[in-house]
Amino acid sequence: MVASLIMSTEPDVLLIAASETDSNLYYATRFLAPDSFIFFRVKSEKILLMSDLEVDRARATATVDTVLSYSEYEARLKRTGVASVTAVDVVDAVLKERGVTRLQVPENFGFEHARRLQARGYELSTKREPFFEERAIKTNEEVAAIEAAQRAVEAAVQRALDLLREATVRGGVIVHEGEPVTSERIKKLINMTLMEQDCVGQHTIIAGGVQACDPHNEGSGPLKANESIVMDVFPRNTTTRYFADMSRTVVKGKARPEMKRLYETVLSAQEEAIASVRDGADGQKIHARVLERFERAGYQTGLINGRMQGFFHGTGHGVGIDIHEAPRIGKSGSPLQTGHVVTVEPGLYYPDIGAVRIEDMVLVTPDGCRNLTQFPKVFEID
Amino acid sequence: MVASLIMSTEPDVLLIAASETDSNLYYATRFLAPDSFIFFRVKSEKILLMSDLEVDRARATATVDTVLSYSEYEARLKRTGVASVTAVDVVDAVLKERGVTRLQVPENFGFEHARRLQARGYELSTKREPFFEERAIKTNEEVAAIEAAQRAVEAAVQRALDLLREATVRGGVIVHEGEPVTSERIKKLINMTLMEQDCVGQHTIIAGGVQACDPHNEGSGPLKANESIVMDVFPRNTTTRYFADMSRTVVKGKARPEMKRLYETVLSAQEEAIASVRDGADGQKIHARVLERFERAGYQTGLINGRMQGFFHGTGHGVGIDIHEAPRIGKSGSPLQTGHVVTVEPGLYYPDIGAVRIEDMVLVTPDGCRNLTQFPKVFEID
Repeated sequence: MVASLIMSTEPDVLLIAASETDSNLYYATRFLAPDSFIFFRVKSEKILLMSDLEVDRARATATVDTVLSYSEYEARLKRTGVASVTAVDVVDAVLKERGVTRLQVPENFGFEHARRLQARGYELSTKREPFFEERAIKTNEEVAAIEAAQRAVEAAVQRALDLLREATVRGGVIVHEGEPVTSERIKKLINMTLMEQDCVGQHTIIAGGVQACDPHNEGSGPLKANESIVMDVFPRNTTTRYFADMSRTVVKGKARPEMKRLYETVLSAQEEAIASVRDGADGQKIHARVLERFERAGYQTGLINGRMQGFFHGTGHGVGIDIHEAPRIGKSGSPLQTGHVVTVEPGLYYPDIGAVRIEDMVLVTPDGCRNLTQFPKVFEID
Repeated sequence: MVASLIMSTEPDVLLIAASETDSNLYYATRFLAPDSFIFFRVKSEKILLMSDLEVDRARATATVDTVLSYSEYEARLKRTGVASVTAVDVVDAVLKERGVTRLQVPENFGFEHARRLQARGYELSTKREPFFEERAIKTNEEVAAIEAAQRAVEAAVQRALDLLREATVRGGVIVHEGEPVTSERIKKLINMTLMEQDCVGQHTIIAGGVQACDPHNEGSGPLKANESIVMDVFPRNTTTRYFADMSRTVVKGKARPEMKRLYETVLSAQEEAIASVRDGADGQKIHARVLERFERAGYQTGLINGRMQGFFHGTGHGVGIDIHEAPRIGKSGSPLQTGHVVTVEPGLYYPDIGAVRIEDMVLVTPDGCRNLTQFPKVFEID
């Protein structure tokens, strides 16, 4: 009720997308479909226009006020003489009924739809992400969903660490049950454990040595002892659609002194960054401080031998229905607010030494943050 | 080489998207990233503009000619006095260097980017899907990837059928190892089997009784004997990114005569539709024939008691890097061509009787099609 009153001052909005890939549309409707459909919020009324295939399911489950049948509008327009009815014809018919001529759309709204609506006299304004600002502020239910996914991440990474602990080293390669331990094998163990808990792990990163110095390299082949191994696990729960995200870096065997120093530097920068997270804190400043701290410790960032080295990604990002969403803690950071869920994940990458990334996920509170990650940080594994 | 010569007559194109969700961009670059990046095809040269985080990985793996560093352009523009450099500034700089002023973009190209490019004098034209027409025509390698995913589907559905065979019936509910067999339990068994084979199953449908009469209802709760159960499994292989898709309908126990007749009607319509698939066949006509056949058999389609009943989805769709891609076999079908991979999946849905959908995936050939599905069609399971 209160929500409705607040919304009544908001602009009328239009989204046309597939909610399977467009998280704003899923957020607005809680209705998941693989094909494009039409959503309006007009004078506070949330309206869906659905195909015959989806209309009953939408009526039963979508969190909107009205579900209209696309094919009924289509049939009506055909009767008035429109030969080949397009989505824009149907949108136009619905908007005319409601007397709407101005609409706000997301920046990624389809250009062709926009052009055709403009040609019919609609005035379109765009809004930058976050399109629905309230999406960045998580409700208790959303935090619980993210934490549940995080518990699955921790169970999965625990299994990977157990395997590394049980493993032996032969000729520099990590071996378990007579077989080399590969990135692929650990990724499968993690992804299977995630699936047992209704979470889908995609692009799970288990990268060792030089591979890990490219932060999005997912890793392949046998993992070696005495080299740092980056594990970055960020699945989505299939029911809630919420993500979780955690990274740990380990060495099976012994880390060289320069590796240990790299690890300690990242760890203390991460702890300092977490300590500085609170309502009102400036994401850009938190990121700049991490970079400064690395530089003071002698870890430069930039092109070295034609390759990016040092710390060349953001310190953190919002997590929710998207794995990367508002806010950002980085070069283009914004003020943190109570209810944001963000990662804190500084890293350092030097092919001569190795890669280290340590990532927790925290909930911003008025005077600090609550760490949603409950997993130890251990570097060397015997 | 030959490809290059052919491409030289094609328009210059621009895509700005995240290839994780935009399959055209993934198709053009074979580079997967979760965040938005910029792709041009300009005078046959395929160019990527990548962030520091992705630039080295893109240089190593993307199937393009040139990978440019976004941050180098950004730094250069800052030196010339641009205070806050946007993606459109960088795109503009690259296009000016290459003397390009006209671009083709997909219909779903972001409206805000389009508007800003137009404001700088660029002439944008859109192209309907399929944006890259060649994407619908699968190479041998792509067919092999789809078939590999299909083998995983079959192994997974086999396990589900084995479980149903081993199960008993108590009080009308299917029971296995002392526990009721639920939709959730079979979905997990299928999704775990898929994950073992590096395939991610999402939205797997195991829906019984009235639930299955809503074709996208994924199903929940205990499955009942003597009711039809629709199984629709369509995972993506994590390595190749290609999908497969298969549906089967079964009854644990005995099907009533009207259920059997429904099944036989769908099965023979599906067989007839498959037999009519060949290079040059009209998707719209194949779909119309299925509908006609159903109507002749007394199965009407439309609103009955305020709910869609009968056959109210398409007969088939292309399968590839997207689960639904060109071409369609439906109300808005198009001519089939050699190399298309399409599903053939008629269905009938009547809450009073039950739901039946039977789906194979076929490769269109000059004189017919090759069925990529090698799985039996069995209705009743003892």
